Amino acid sequence: MSRTEIATSSADDITVRGKSLTRDLIGKLTLTEMMCLTILGEVPDRARIAAIDACLVALMEHGLTPSALATRLVYGSAPEAMQGAVAAGLLGVGGRFVGTVEGCAHLLERLVAAPDLAAAAAAIVADAKSPLPGFGHDIHKPDDPRTPVLFAVARAHGIAGVHIAALEALSRALDTAKRRHITINATGAVAAVLADAGIPIAIMRGFALVARCAGLVGHVAEEQRDPAMRSIWEAAEGAVPYHQEEKAR
Amino acid sequence: MSRTEIATSSADDITVRGKSLTRDLIGKLTLTEMMCLTILGEVPDRARIAAIDACLVALMEHGLTPSALATRLVYGSAPEAMQGAVAAGLLGVGGRFVGTVEGCAHLLERLVAAPDLAAAAAAIVADAKSPLPGFGHDIHKPDDPRTPVLFAVARAHGIAGVHIAALEALSRALDTAKRRHITINATGAVAAVLADAGIPIAIMRGFALVARCAGLVGHVAEEQRDPAMRSIWEAAEGAVPYHQEEKAR
Amino acid sequence: MSRTEIATSSADDITVRGKSLTRDLIGKLTLTEMMCLTILGEVPDRARIAAIDACLVALMEHGLTPSALATRLVYGSAPEAMQGAVAAGLLGVGGRFVGTVEGCAHLLERLVAAPDLAAAAAAIVADAKSPLPGFGHDIHKPDDPRTPVLFAVARAHGIAGVHIAALEALSRALDTAKRRHITINATGAVAAVLADAGIPIAIMRGFALVARCAGLVGHVAEEQRDPAMRSIWEAAEGAVPYHQEEKAR
Amino acid sequence: MSRTEIATSSADDITVRGKSLTRDLIGKLTLTEMMCLTILGEVPDRARIAAIDACLVALMEHGLTPSALATRLVYGSAPEAMQGAVAAGLLGVGGRFVGTVEGCAHLLERLVAAPDLAAAAAAIVADAKSPLPGFGHDIHKPDDPRTPVLFAVARAHGIAGVHIAALEALSRALDTAKRRHITINATGAVAAVLADAGIPIAIMRGFALVARCAGLVGHVAEEQRDPAMRSIWEAAEGAVPYHQEEKAR
Repeated sequence: MSRTEIATSSADDITVRGKSLTRDLIGKLTLTEMMCLTILGEVPDRARIAAIDACLVALMEHGLTPSALATRLVYGSAPEAMQGAVAAGLLGVGGRFVGTVEGCAHLLERLVAAPDLAAAAAAIVADAKSPLPGFGHDIHKPDDPRTPVLFAVARAHGIAGVHIAALEALSRALDTAKRRHITINATGAVAAVLADAGIPIAIMRGFALVARCAGLVGHVAEEQRDPAMRSIWEAAEGAVPYHQEEKAR
Repeated sequence: MSRTEIATSSADDITVRGKSLTRDLIGKLTLTEMMCLTILGEVPDRARIAAIDACLVALMEHGLTPSALATRLVYGSAPEAMQGAVAAGLLGVGGRFVGTVEGCAHLLERLVAAPDLAAAAAAIVADAKSPLPGFGHDIHKPDDPRTPVLFAVARAHGIAGVHIAALEALSRALDTAKRRHITINATGAVAAVLADAGIPIAIMRGFALVARCAGLVGHVAEEQRDPAMRSIWEAAEGAVPYHQEEKAR
Repeated sequence: MSRTEIATSSADDITVRGKSLTRDLIGKLTLTEMMCLTILGEVPDRARIAAIDACLVALMEHGLTPSALATRLVYGSAPEAMQGAVAAGLLGVGGRFVGTVEGCAHLLERLVAAPDLAAAAAAIVADAKSPLPGFGHDIHKPDDPRTPVLFAVARAHGIAGVHIAALEALSRALDTAKRRHITINATGAVAAVLADAGIPIAIMRGFALVARCAGLVGHVAEEQRDPAMRSIWEAAEGAVPYHQEEKAR
Repeated sequence: MSRTEIATSSADDITVRGKSLTRDLIGKLTLTEMMCLTILGEVPDRARIAAIDACLVALMEHGLTPSALATRLVYGSAPEAMQGAVAAGLLGVGGRFVGTVEGCAHLLERLVAAPDLAAAAAAIVADAKSPLPGFGHDIHKPDDPRTPVLFAVARAHGIAGVHIAALEALSRALDTAKRRHITINATGAVAAVLADAGIPIAIMRGFALVARCAGLVGHVAEEQRDPAMRSIWEAAEGAVPYHQEEKAR
């Protein structure tokens, strides 16, 4: 029979993951620590929390992304239900964006298990039919400024380990094959740091969802102060004109 | 104890609302009829179905609405989950758009119950602090072209009744008070025709959701053939520039 | 540049897919016809519409599915936003349920393109590592009662074609390999009939979403009349007891 | 023209709310601080962050709530799209649950503005037609164990102010009128502490959404380790039997 370990309550307390909400958690844990307790079943040490916080901060807010636009458009249409606007934006946190973090993490997992890291990295580069997840960026060239900062946080807290090493080996193999430097983007760096902090690949998307959820609430708050939804709507309408020949049928 | 009347199944049949899915429904009912059976508990007669179909056709597709934009933005971000893209768009079918149908229907219900229709209509107009739901339109002036067509369908099928009469009385009272003609918009006409077809106000939003769901799938299909998501994204980004003074802080 | 063919409007009319909403569509098309115009770009003939309606009727309502439960739980939590409840249920129309329709349709497409249908069907059966999509059912044995009805509708309207033939060939190959009869389930039948009606595989999920949207509105309507959300909640809580050892940590 | 203050990027940096993501934010801020920067436009001091963290910890996880059940049911139906499952659960964070936080906060705002706190509290109690938001609990009697802990955190950090005082005044007025003690529930305490920490009422729901998002990811993680979806489904189905008379029609 399935059993939950998440939470139960009695008249005088609530238990979350075997801990007393009132004695052990409220006022004792930060949001990040409580989130890890709920998802992972334990509170990571301070070093891992610092690395996880760095990744969450990097993931939270990227400006007017498709997700942020969806949240603003829905909020303007149904302002009575903020939860619908935030949910609409989260629905865009799928294969094309956060799937890349997972895709890169799977490569790193293969490399970590390989007997010869450099050879395995070269093989992945040789076999790749499409751009490797975690590499390349439209704007941030030659380097994504977030990547060294994320690595530095991991190193400063003694968290940097086999996954960052694997990503760097993959980068060397890719640069050698391409004969030029390809950006390690923030997506790749987040995959490596989260993996070194012990986050299983299967739940990495969940961490991205929480960070983006906070970012999308930021867009709702800005929409409350200075609504941009109508400008967005009009600009988008103008960008996709009606196909004229169709009219002539 | 709560009980469902919706559906049950045995080894050799499925029962929906007391009817055999295989003997009474598949091949016997249209989508509109089956939808009414499921929602209302009975299949309306042909005249009411014709009026309901007319309203659903009018509601389905209005171009690049905020809902349609949200669907396209989310579909481009997570094309592996079409259901997420359609759900994102439906989340915009809320207070500001479909709430107007419900708001107008509530006014009509009050008018239908009033002993003196003209006096009650004048009182509603006199008391109104904001524009009356169901009236006015940015583009369609002096008249919304959908309104007379929806009324004509209802009349042709003998469905036009007290709610259309109430809407027309409200229109006369409004024009008298404003000393000019105010458009009866399609939202108002849909409210009156659905009410005359026997749809309860509390579930009208559900009919709008089904019609819009079909319309949003149309946007997904167009996005599959000719993706506009990136144009929409870029145009929207350009429409909301970054606030420069903020940088100077 | 991307262009939309979907809809535009002027002061005195709205154009959808090159047709006048007021002259050609409202009062002229059913919901199913309008939906096909919007998604496919044309209104199928009566025979294809009959086959599509039969599939939509079969897909609409399956009782207290996970989707229907999600809709009821969310509606009870946020009754002010019906669109959120319906969206929550639609989010369950994903890989495990409607993905099977698509998976079966892909098999049928391969069979239709094969030079020797029987040999290709035998090869698919021989290569299959997991149950074939479109076959097998927990309750409906030896046959799913919907399957012959869906085929009969397609045949009665002259729509039954290569995809139904392919599904029947696959069934014969499967029964031969297993030495017993395996149910052709409704999912498989819907895939075959929609394909024979000319619906592209890439948009089949959209047809399921519209049908389920109507079914989920039916659950909202029943929840309005006779709320079951609290019974569902309590039963579900009882089904997943708190893991006691966890407490002892 | 609308302008965003949220984020922009150049080749070598990203600016969020006027701060450099790489120099000022990654590795410098916690998730809670970054979330506040994004939503409020500034990073609150340590005392306010501690109070906000306490509220977020209290809100995160309440066991098998309707939202958590919706997330698990959708995740089991479409495991390829975790974002859909989390979004489905968030759609339940609406009027009935988090609306109570807002409703209580509005009462506290009125009290804070009143010239005579005790008289204003007595008037609110006398005028109330339904239970006051923030008071009463099914299980936690006579007191909700979270309330004094939340107040203690606020006091320990010097954050407790006019809103907690207003909630306590309201509690005294309510107990006097009812002639017995009514629980101040965690919802009321969260409203008072968030208000004293300077969170505007209009965005409080956003804080609840982030906390619940993390909690719902916890349910996805448990579903990955020990799936309960099928047990939940079966129990829920059993709780709502098919209405027999309907069959006899």
